[in-house]
Amino acid sequence: MYVDLGNILETTPGVTPDILDRLDSRVATAHDRIQTGMENEEHGYAALNLPETVDTDEIKTAVDRFDDPESIITVGIGGSALGAATIDAALSTPDHADTYYLDNVDPEAINALLETIDLEDTVVNVVSRSGTTAETLANFLVVQEAMADADVEWSDRTVVTTGDEGNLRDLADAHDLPVLRVPDGVPGRFSALSTVGLAVAALQGYDLDAIVEGAASEADKLSGSLYDSPAYAYGAATYALAERGALTNALMPYSEDLEYFAEWFAQLWAESLGKDGVGQTPARALGATDQHSQLQLYRAGPRDKVVTLVRPRNRRDRQIPETDLDGLSYLGGSSLGELLAAEFEATEASLAAAGRPNIRIEIDRVDERGIGELLYGMEAACIMYGELANVSTFTQPAVEWGKRAARGLLGGGEFEEAAAVADKRELLIE
Amino acid sequence: MYVDLGNILETTPGVTPDILDRLDSRVATAHDRIQTGMENEEHGYAALNLPETVDTDEIKTAVDRFDDPESIITVGIGGSALGAATIDAALSTPDHADTYYLDNVDPEAINALLETIDLEDTVVNVVSRSGTTAETLANFLVVQEAMADADVEWSDRTVVTTGDEGNLRDLADAHDLPVLRVPDGVPGRFSALSTVGLAVAALQGYDLDAIVEGAASEADKLSGSLYDSPAYAYGAATYALAERGALTNALMPYSEDLEYFAEWFAQLWAESLGKDGVGQTPARALGATDQHSQLQLYRAGPRDKVVTLVRPRNRRDRQIPETDLDGLSYLGGSSLGELLAAEFEATEASLAAAGRPNIRIEIDRVDERGIGELLYGMEAACIMYGELANVSTFTQPAVEWGKRAARGLLGGGEFEEAAAVADKRELLIE
Repeated sequence: MYVDLGNILETTPGVTPDILDRLDSRVATAHDRIQTGMENEEHGYAALNLPETVDTDEIKTAVDRFDDPESIITVGIGGSALGAATIDAALSTPDHADTYYLDNVDPEAINALLETIDLEDTVVNVVSRSGTTAETLANFLVVQEAMADADVEWSDRTVVTTGDEGNLRDLADAHDLPVLRVPDGVPGRFSALSTVGLAVAALQGYDLDAIVEGAASEADKLSGSLYDSPAYAYGAATYALAERGALTNALMPYSEDLEYFAEWFAQLWAESLGKDGVGQTPARALGATDQHSQLQLYRAGPRDKVVTLVRPRNRRDRQIPETDLDGLSYLGGSSLGELLAAEFEATEASLAAAGRPNIRIEIDRVDERGIGELLYGMEAACIMYGELANVSTFTQPAVEWGKRAARGLLGGGEFEEAAAVADKRELLIE
Repeated sequence: MYVDLGNILETTPGVTPDILDRLDSRVATAHDRIQTGMENEEHGYAALNLPETVDTDEIKTAVDRFDDPESIITVGIGGSALGAATIDAALSTPDHADTYYLDNVDPEAINALLETIDLEDTVVNVVSRSGTTAETLANFLVVQEAMADADVEWSDRTVVTTGDEGNLRDLADAHDLPVLRVPDGVPGRFSALSTVGLAVAALQGYDLDAIVEGAASEADKLSGSLYDSPAYAYGAATYALAERGALTNALMPYSEDLEYFAEWFAQLWAESLGKDGVGQTPARALGATDQHSQLQLYRAGPRDKVVTLVRPRNRRDRQIPETDLDGLSYLGGSSLGELLAAEFEATEASLAAAGRPNIRIEIDRVDERGIGELLYGMEAACIMYGELANVSTFTQPAVEWGKRAARGLLGGGEFEEAAAVADKRELLIE
């Protein structure tokens, strides 16, 4: 992973080389804290050890019995789906299985999927650490029923990723399902490089070891200075910009294969750093498309943003045919890749010329190694930001209220939060 | 469209009934301005006349010759793709054609599509008002070439939507292609209810007249008071909240069919309102999924947001099977729709309990009429916001710099912006 901070040095908000130098001593202290956490396998920090601790053979073996399925349905929500989806979206080609993520409880979407998919040739990958996540278990019950209706033996087509106990563990034991263990100390949004994120990759036959090697190469670069570690450079720079008013971080990959990566990043950033009244709001964008949608705002709206532009340095290209269309002859002889590169650099310079901070992140290629670098790098960046901002990076206390309310509303117990829902103040315009 | 402002009255930022009452006199003035613009068919305001001016028969006739295609590729970017995609995503069922949008110039994505699609049974819908949009014309040249390579006569499979002159108009004339005219005075991001947004809907056989009727019903509600017009209520409330610090507007539909609607809204809001150092940043979310991703931030992060929750009041449902799984018996007997409704209301109440402003938008159903209401309503809301904020709602001057730079980089002329790209300051960490 390559991080270029050149375009945050003469912008508003922005930082000076002096500010970065002063921040670097805090990076050193934070790095010590992170290293201690890693050494002691502390909750959250343990995720940074995954390149060493993950057992790729175990994952490959667990899914061995499924022979080249046509479709893979992952039943999981939040971190239980996003890491797997991000890796698969980055690496999938038309030859691979179609993948679906039941990460919502929209009945119309689920009906549409179950009406069209051939369940006989589908693998169901169900993921919940606790085995009690309401959305995931509800969806899994629905899929089981659909399989029964289609005369497909669900227990032949299901792999489970869960904790040491709970509903899914019991189910796996009772039906002799292949089961993968969610590692200890790894929060969902930091689990992409564990069993949670890699089961789909194994089913697809991607090179798990290359993914892990990419992550390990980024781990090797963690050090006591932001100038030596791309991950820390990104975490420290975004923190410093947020302190100076960049409360939004627009992540804009110039690669459709990385569109899901922006969603994964949004969870990582929002849930880890958004607490105690602080945090940087992730905005998901896509280059070049969103030049025709968001760029006007990024360049001329409030000065409350940093834009992160992400791209691979190499990709498979395609020539644009020669043309005599009026005013377009310059396109002929170029390639789509060159056009996209020109748009990337033009957008970056356009923001800089308007004094708007932006950061360039590159990987060599969107392949196994590249996605491993990117996922690990952003996780380490997020943890560094959390240390510098002094927040509890690995918790998400604010979502509990709503969970209790929803459960109460559905008759799953007495919860005072459910009563509060009925008290809603109304001012309806219709 | 129903808009409920109850949950912005006791929040921070928030408004009081007094503030809304005072704002209402400005709404009346702005409504007069908007009405004058509509009557005179002024640039931008003319979009609000589309329910009266659009000719659905013309659109249906233009695509008549294409008999039930397997796939539809729309070649267009920004407003030339988003409206069509939003309507199709809302209304499509597995029986309809597969739709693809070449709204980017990522060679790997385009290669993957062209390698897998059956071009013989595909309709190409190419959309550019000027006929010179670089991305769109480059993609169209590539698609033409792929059709030639596959021995498919492109001119038998192409419908064009463009202005009165330019490359695409000339091409349509030369090859006798069906051609639809982009209406005057309608900026791309306000063109969903015109030929631009409705050509795909016509190809899919949706009820265009019901879409237009939905829009017309929302138009009928425009009036001099925010208390009588859901669209103006939304525009005025989000404006008032932005003035008080809600610089981000997180739009969170609880319907997968409306996921694209959030993208369309993001362009509408960002490009129309993000200028002169002001504007509200749209953040795209999806319920219930993003309760496990963004909600922590929305509830406990900086008080710089309003969350807009969108849902249909009715939808096709699916029962959750009965279960004896530990702690989950409450789910059995409920439906996925009930679970989703409980999560919607719990999230809304959870934000309100934390003093975070949120607005509820509902439509009766995600159908032709509903999507017509929603698109028209949000356009009118945006125009109202623009009037109150005193910005030039219908222009996007800040994107021109980057366009010139990209063109210069590709050898399409001498542009000083291209030289600025080469001057990029670098601070590379690798």
